[in-house]
Amino acid sequence: MSDMPSRVTIQEEGPREGFQIEPGPIPTERKIELIDALSETGLEKIQVASFVNPRRVPGWADAEAVVAGIKKKPGVRYHALWLNEQGLLRTLAAEGLEMKGSISTTTSEKFMRNNTNRGFEENDQVQRNQIAICKENGVPVERLGVMTAFGCNFEGEISSGKVLIAVERMLAIAGEAGESIKVISLADTMGWATPLSIKRIVGAVRERWPEHRIGLHLHDTRGQGIVNAYAGMEVGVDLFDASVAGLGGCPFAKLKGAAGNVCTEDLVFMCEEMGIATGVDLDRLIDAALLAEDIVGHPLPGAVMRGGSLGALRRQSA
Amino acid sequence: MSDMPSRVTIQEEGPREGFQIEPGPIPTERKIELIDALSETGLEKIQVASFVNPRRVPGWADAEAVVAGIKKKPGVRYHALWLNEQGLLRTLAAEGLEMKGSISTTTSEKFMRNNTNRGFEENDQVQRNQIAICKENGVPVERLGVMTAFGCNFEGEISSGKVLIAVERMLAIAGEAGESIKVISLADTMGWATPLSIKRIVGAVRERWPEHRIGLHLHDTRGQGIVNAYAGMEVGVDLFDASVAGLGGCPFAKLKGAAGNVCTEDLVFMCEEMGIATGVDLDRLIDAALLAEDIVGHPLPGAVMRGGSLGALRRQSA
Repeated sequence: MSDMPSRVTIQEEGPREGFQIEPGPIPTERKIELIDALSETGLEKIQVASFVNPRRVPGWADAEAVVAGIKKKPGVRYHALWLNEQGLLRTLAAEGLEMKGSISTTTSEKFMRNNTNRGFEENDQVQRNQIAICKENGVPVERLGVMTAFGCNFEGEISSGKVLIAVERMLAIAGEAGESIKVISLADTMGWATPLSIKRIVGAVRERWPEHRIGLHLHDTRGQGIVNAYAGMEVGVDLFDASVAGLGGCPFAKLKGAAGNVCTEDLVFMCEEMGIATGVDLDRLIDAALLAEDIVGHPLPGAVMRGGSLGALRRQSA
Repeated sequence: MSDMPSRVTIQEEGPREGFQIEPGPIPTERKIELIDALSETGLEKIQVASFVNPRRVPGWADAEAVVAGIKKKPGVRYHALWLNEQGLLRTLAAEGLEMKGSISTTTSEKFMRNNTNRGFEENDQVQRNQIAICKENGVPVERLGVMTAFGCNFEGEISSGKVLIAVERMLAIAGEAGESIKVISLADTMGWATPLSIKRIVGAVRERWPEHRIGLHLHDTRGQGIVNAYAGMEVGVDLFDASVAGLGGCPFAKLKGAAGNVCTEDLVFMCEEMGIATGVDLDRLIDAALLAEDIVGHPLPGAVMRGGSLGALRRQSA
């Protein structure tokens, strides 16, 4: 009955997403402090910075300094976000980062026009160019991302057909260039997903491309992040993006509408308590979540960081 | 494969739980304002007050005034909490409340001793007495509750065997007195449950007593409330307690450890978006949640109240 995985991989995106959205300014050494703490939790992959235009994202003007300052722990893969060749070159120049390229699209051309002033045709060209600059710099492109895969504020419901077309289009572009996509990442960009749509969309993609690994990027806009991750696991998904403490989201009016990723430690708690291995030490992760809250200076949405793990309670009661 | 119900009943407990724990004081008329708003949402049953010792629970010293002040909407069942004969008599004296008795136990004698200084034997006697005072006052006893059904800070893991014994014991006590229990309510009092333990425990109870309706009372201590409700629905549960805006819980240090129920509007959102009827108008419920936040004067844990429903977005995008 169940395709539940016995092990899942959680890709930590808290530092990149959080420090981008927080009003800050957050000192460089505190960003490093959080990343170093996350490095000791057992997380395999941490997105540590964003090499984007510092005028547009001032919170990451210090990307180089952060990456230079973190203690790179052997076995942990550190990576960063970039959006164009300039960003790619800055990321390549930073030492100790895993370099993997990615192409992306959305299911909704209306959203794309609104967000980037492009249509699908122009986006295809932008993605071809992305692959070309990766190739020139020896960076493999192994991942494709589909935004608004479960619903869109501009376009409403999203059929599985639209998701299949989006994936197909990106696979074709990668194929033309001789790149081999391994991961199809489906994003609930605007928090529309429920367990039912997760199963419907993931099921359709899996059926069509059974050889690809599916990842989920789940925004917790409407409190469904954890249940959507669970629904994903029920249909075999074993790869999730998440943010420590729910960094990037905020239950406060000043950041109203800021929709963070599903919270890493709440997801780790669910998995580990169900016997699904994450490789993460929950108590250390909770400490990192509390540190994140201290760094941003206001409460963050995570629950387990307040409720605590069950390990100590089990030992006390034994 | 699925026992998913097509319709669920959500019993609103926000006013009772929330106004009990909030430091307040909250004016009586504002409590009434929230309950009146909830009455217009389509919720079938609302727990509106607590007739308990006002020295121990000062937030409910005005229980009589609140119940007298609310506009009783036809079709909505209003009820209140009481714990002893004095409370029962106060509840009976208040007009317009549904009178249903309930007996309860825990799976964990350690917790019971810690919480009430009783053992199982003494609790049996207390529950027999509860039935007797209900009988004397013409109040039927149709519900039994089992606390710490999914884990306990004092006792650790809880086997399904312990839950079955607890239910059996209460059914026997009700049976002796000629009462017919209809609902078995299982509470995750300390937030230990995950989808796996929900399915394990609910499955064992359902198998043994297929004719009883099972209800779940889920605390969101570790962010698992919604996923646990979903797991419950996957094994046929169609009755849930919930609190508007997550009233009773609080993501703030001053109420640290305060574990609210699963949030009503987040649960309604999940159900309705999956085609499971709740009878609730989500937009009205969101307005009630925002009102609750205004009344308590600090942010509450609900997510959909901030993220919004999808109805307006669907209309805009159509």
